[in-house]
Amino acid sequence: MSQKQQQLDEFFDFLRFPSISTDSAHKDDVDRCADYLIEKFGSMGLEASKYATPGHPIVIAKSAPKADRPTVLIYGHYDVQPIDPIEGWATPPFEPTLIDDKIFCRGATDNKGQHFSHILGVEETLKQHGELPVNVIFLLEGEEEIGSPNLAPFLEQNRDLLAADICAVSDTGMLAPGVPTMTYGLRGISCLEFTLHGPKGDLHSGVYGGAVANPALMVSRLVAKLHDETGRVLIPHFYDDVIPLADWEREMWASLPDGDASTMAETGVSALWGEQGYTALEQRWARPTAEVNGIGGGYQGEGSKTVIPRSAMAKLSFRLVPDQDPAAIARHAKEFLESQCPEGCRIDVEIGHDGPAYVMDPHSQHGKAAQAALEKTFGSAPRLIREGGSIPIIQAIHDILGIDSLLLGLALPDCQIHAPNENFYLENFYGGIRLNQALLEELGSA
Amino acid sequence: MSQKQQQLDEFFDFLRFPSISTDSAHKDDVDRCADYLIEKFGSMGLEASKYATPGHPIVIAKSAPKADRPTVLIYGHYDVQPIDPIEGWATPPFEPTLIDDKIFCRGATDNKGQHFSHILGVEETLKQHGELPVNVIFLLEGEEEIGSPNLAPFLEQNRDLLAADICAVSDTGMLAPGVPTMTYGLRGISCLEFTLHGPKGDLHSGVYGGAVANPALMVSRLVAKLHDETGRVLIPHFYDDVIPLADWEREMWASLPDGDASTMAETGVSALWGEQGYTALEQRWARPTAEVNGIGGGYQGEGSKTVIPRSAMAKLSFRLVPDQDPAAIARHAKEFLESQCPEGCRIDVEIGHDGPAYVMDPHSQHGKAAQAALEKTFGSAPRLIREGGSIPIIQAIHDILGIDSLLLGLALPDCQIHAPNENFYLENFYGGIRLNQALLEELGSA
Repeated sequence: MSQKQQQLDEFFDFLRFPSISTDSAHKDDVDRCADYLIEKFGSMGLEASKYATPGHPIVIAKSAPKADRPTVLIYGHYDVQPIDPIEGWATPPFEPTLIDDKIFCRGATDNKGQHFSHILGVEETLKQHGELPVNVIFLLEGEEEIGSPNLAPFLEQNRDLLAADICAVSDTGMLAPGVPTMTYGLRGISCLEFTLHGPKGDLHSGVYGGAVANPALMVSRLVAKLHDETGRVLIPHFYDDVIPLADWEREMWASLPDGDASTMAETGVSALWGEQGYTALEQRWARPTAEVNGIGGGYQGEGSKTVIPRSAMAKLSFRLVPDQDPAAIARHAKEFLESQCPEGCRIDVEIGHDGPAYVMDPHSQHGKAAQAALEKTFGSAPRLIREGGSIPIIQAIHDILGIDSLLLGLALPDCQIHAPNENFYLENFYGGIRLNQALLEELGSA
Repeated sequence: MSQKQQQLDEFFDFLRFPSISTDSAHKDDVDRCADYLIEKFGSMGLEASKYATPGHPIVIAKSAPKADRPTVLIYGHYDVQPIDPIEGWATPPFEPTLIDDKIFCRGATDNKGQHFSHILGVEETLKQHGELPVNVIFLLEGEEEIGSPNLAPFLEQNRDLLAADICAVSDTGMLAPGVPTMTYGLRGISCLEFTLHGPKGDLHSGVYGGAVANPALMVSRLVAKLHDETGRVLIPHFYDDVIPLADWEREMWASLPDGDASTMAETGVSALWGEQGYTALEQRWARPTAEVNGIGGGYQGEGSKTVIPRSAMAKLSFRLVPDQDPAAIARHAKEFLESQCPEGCRIDVEIGHDGPAYVMDPHSQHGKAAQAALEKTFGSAPRLIREGGSIPIIQAIHDILGIDSLLLGLALPDCQIHAPNENFYLENFYGGIRLNQALLEELGSA
């Protein structure tokens, strides 16, 4: 059997564990999946341990440490999303199926394929050279799809065990097949909810309409004050700490396939809307936002009910960029909303969860090493991007372990993560193995 | 037994029918209540008939017509609201109980007490004089509390039977005990609902936020464009046909107990809000409004879900005053909303039910007769008011039978209609009898 076939067979075995972390019926499957990793690491000569948590276990595997080498932490998660809607699947969700150049299976991309290729990369380097150019620590959790509730506490309690110089993560996107992509920034978030309280009860809009502030109207008027006509956020001090885009970033993103067009295609909108003077990619990756995630008040059922509702509410979230402080933004927003509360209403503002934006310098020594590895693996200069969402794990690794993360994406735009027919591009499976080898080599000599 | 006691006993018998029109379990009770009326009218010498409808019957009773006299149609409804929450009642809901100066029973005010006193007034006049100063037609329906679905068709089919010069209705409010009150105007209504459609599905607000129009934000911005800062409606042509308040109306309403204070007390708001330059009573009774009865979009549950919703909606209703045309207002509003639809969204506007405002001249011959009757009954000049809600029945009587209605309210502010402990002021029961006698006399000599 060829080495490539053997690697694929092992990957398929790994994929067959229905390690759905959110479903207690699969608790044993998640656990057996962790055991499979322990066994695999053991066969490679790594010292592997399964750490119990209040939820699913965390697997740690370490190469024999050598004092003269930097240490690389490789993060991944072996748990997967549920499979519903089951009727959407063209192949059995947990029976890996190779069709043309794609492996179809739940978890194929997110995240089993992406971290298993790193494992196989380490294995191959060890087979070839008997040692690694760096010290490696694998950190593989089983709760990413349920929000990693036990990861940060584990990091807190195991700082020494996990001490490393840099973290490498393949759990982000790749712009297109064969286009190496490194994500060096993520937006942060700050959430809040506010409720406007008006009359003591719902009022008949015929009897009282015209003389009383209507909370459903007032909540709209308040939300409408969040932006000016051009989409700029009007909360005082909102932009105070925003670091402007660097010229190289704007040039890099302008060289990517047309982000305005792809944003419209992906979302199905007929026109874009947002802060003027920025492309869609700039707006999504490097500019802060004020979004309404939910709004509600009064009668929302069939037909009409002519009430003035006693209250109405809106849920807001702010996507943040370096160097905005989430707590300060929430405070500014709260003050702004309270200052705009209309007469005749009372406002309650409840501040929710938050997390800062993340950015690392892709032109640092580690960043350059990652770029070189990507170029060696895929044959062209990597595209340097940010992403608009948050990855709390990356923030936790930064805050608790004090290290940056190299986000080397192997997930293609059509990989269907979290959806039926999730798939992993076969080329990226083997590419991931080569990427790991190149990355460790570059980091070892950096 | 005194005549007064006998009248009260009869009223109590009438109240004991649990004629809840919305509950099919009470269908027979509604029917028996109609039979009771037929019998009562028969005993008075009126020709009474029960007309079947697809729902509950309509009772018609006519005095022997005399060619030289005007005809007065007296409208009422013998059906009542349900009694829940039953635990809120201090007395059995269908056992009339006299406590101090109030009769507690479901239907005591709304509307059995108010129209039964008219019946007893006619009876008393007949006993005293053997004839009436006018021809009387009673029109008593059993479906008012479920929206009178069969009344307008019945009017359409029985124009000749119901031909009259004026209608009298006691189903509105009286400002305070002993304060005669005549309502001469009601606002109309025009309803619509609109939905803004944005992306093809809910979007991750991290991934796409900042570049895509958010329907929950946009629906707010659109709603916020309905009024200027001072509460004036900004829909073009909205005020074109509004008849300004007459000086006598503003003076009359300024002479009433402070409407600003009572509006705040009744609604529990700490400040009023509305079109500038008008008192709360003027705003509520004689100025048109644009109200949001419901608004909704995105995530409204516990906590946060960071989506950009695919759509968001608002339900609007416009309260209308003479001479606004409901269909024209709906059309203007639709055009305005469509013209303001943001780029990147699609708007659907669905026009709902409507009805024009109603106003009659309280200084007309009929109006003056009603005023004289009120003054004779209660001993002071009647207050002339409008009400903010709509009474579709009054509009139907106007449109189909071609006559105005004299709205002579006997319902006191604390009568608890539609709520537990509904009550009718004993003085208004007897006052209603005298009012009917005076009204028919005034109308007969008008």
